[in-house]
Amino acid sequence: MRHTISVLVENKFGVLARIAGLFSARGYNIASLAVSETQDPTISCMTIVVEAEDEKILEQIKKQLNKLIDVIRIIDFTKKEHAERELILVKVKCSGKDKANLESLLKKYVAKVIQHKEGICIIEAVDRQEQIRQLLEALSQFGIEELIRTGKIAMA
Amino acid sequence: MRHTISVLVENKFGVLARIAGLFSARGYNIASLAVSETQDPTISCMTIVVEAEDEKILEQIKKQLNKLIDVIRIIDFTKKEHAERELILVKVKCSGKDKANLESLLKKYVAKVIQHKEGICIIEAVDRQEQIRQLLEALSQFGIEELIRTGKIAMA
Repeated sequence: MRHTISVLVENKFGVLARIAGLFSARGYNIASLAVSETQDPTISCMTIVVEAEDEKILEQIKKQLNKLIDVIRIIDFTKKEHAERELILVKVKCSGKDKANLESLLKKYVAKVIQHKEGICIIEAVDRQEQIRQLLEALSQFGIEELIRTGKIAMA
Repeated sequence: MRHTISVLVENKFGVLARIAGLFSARGYNIASLAVSETQDPTISCMTIVVEAEDEKILEQIKKQLNKLIDVIRIIDFTKKEHAERELILVKVKCSGKDKANLESLLKKYVAKVIQHKEGICIIEAVDRQEQIRQLLEALSQFGIEELIRTGKIAMA
């Protein structure tokens, strides 16, 4: 099962490497990770989506993270009400005659074409992960050439 | 100066830690990082925004990355035409009477309120980093309570 954890850390040199090392040393599998500054530039937020089969492993992860000196706060969104979003950029094949089809498909999602050149469209989409999964499934009929995702971010 | 690099890597255990370690060992400062699967689940894409004062340092970074066995391809967007986007979630104070003000401000951006409860709004915004910077500046009058960013993603 996938769990989402937010980790507020000091925005210091080497903290990312330390946390990534902690995960890899213990064999925890990171599905996605988004790291950036918060409103306070001395503090960064890491949103980590991690595969953990049971609660015990998740508790271990949180305990290990809490031991790190640069970790300020951990929020586990597993049982917490929260807003979640992910951003993706997708490149799909799209000839002139497919364009109308594509646009009517995108209307069902929070998605739009941001570039269309020589039979290739770049689409931007923002939604919850379940909706993103459905959109990608629907887009596969066009042929997905490239997909870049930010990974999930969440807010309590 | 900030540079954006995309690194396609094998979606294997420990790769993230290795790359983060490479950056920290050499004192390169990561401003933001977004890592997630691509359309091929065996391959992940890392979008790294890095501070590098001169071209020489950037070249060093790319050379070091290329030496890693799990690195498939590196794209440096510095001089390349590309689409870029970042997603943010922002929590701001917003009383009933401020709501109209806030909504008219958001109209100038690709941004919207996704939750409003007890005088607190959660806003979702997607744009290029320069627009996001302007939006955050404009939102500061409301009082930013919390800010989570995905970091930039880019597509050639």
